[in-house]
Amino acid sequence: MRPEALSWSADNCTLGRAMEILGEKWTFLVLRELFMGIRRFDDLRVRTAIPRQVLTNRLARLVDTGLLRREPYQEPGARVREEYRLTQKGLDLYPVIIAIKEWGDRYLADPEGPPLLIEHRECGALVHAELRCEAGHEVGPRAAKPLLGPSIRPLEPVDP
Amino acid sequence: MRPEALSWSADNCTLGRAMEILGEKWTFLVLRELFMGIRRFDDLRVRTAIPRQVLTNRLARLVDTGLLRREPYQEPGARVREEYRLTQKGLDLYPVIIAIKEWGDRYLADPEGPPLLIEHRECGALVHAELRCEAGHEVGPRAAKPLLGPSIRPLEPVDP
Repeated sequence: MRPEALSWSADNCTLGRAMEILGEKWTFLVLRELFMGIRRFDDLRVRTAIPRQVLTNRLARLVDTGLLRREPYQEPGARVREEYRLTQKGLDLYPVIIAIKEWGDRYLADPEGPPLLIEHRECGALVHAELRCEAGHEVGPRAAKPLLGPSIRPLEPVDP
Repeated sequence: MRPEALSWSADNCTLGRAMEILGEKWTFLVLRELFMGIRRFDDLRVRTAIPRQVLTNRLARLVDTGLLRREPYQEPGARVREEYRLTQKGLDLYPVIIAIKEWGDRYLADPEGPPLLIEHRECGALVHAELRCEAGHEVGPRAAKPLLGPSIRPLEPVDP
């Protein structure tokens, strides 16, 4: 039984393209801190323990790819410096961050439980990442079915 | 205004621990293929374009961390070989995979749209990753609030 996926190209897979930007442990740690309100280089460096040069490169790439923007700030008596803010494109990664956190909570937390929970500001109920269909059903992996989308491409036959 | 997160340790962050396992572009590409029903080494190699030795190491690590298991199979006339299957721990990453795909669909798809959609097998409606609170509200990043969890730890003061 040859899986049907073998007939289709993965070249324009949007998950693959997303991982070109996100595909590194560092990236998610930086985004985690930004979602927690940490915006300044030195704080990011201490919180993530990322070497200075790696963090510099990583932040530049996140700015280049439009996930972060630089914003000037000035402390009294100091020169103007820049902090980092999530753009809309960056904010839209929140479901990804929470989905990873929840998986980590389930399998990798300390025995007493996760260090952080997420609550809905307005009603105080706990927030979870979930898969739901447009008819409102919760959907597990076995109830989900890939459907060919508008940019699906047959796999090019490989020259012998 | 010093962000409150600066007072707490990130050492036992479950997202950080999750990214120790997941934090590489390769890992998500391999998981994508497994969720699409691709299970055999040579198929995985061709689909992901991961160099053979890297893929071998990556698969071994995914088995070691309990996301995949090896399962013997035998084609007529050939020796017994092994394919890879997602464990429950691996299957539980499905919301993560779909959340990343959806973000990619929004920002990185070809002009005509995404190559794949996900439908609910039972009702045919399209499936999305979303954040929802236990009271049933959809929750955006600005409506979500971190709450100290059972394993939160104050940051150790750094020795001067």
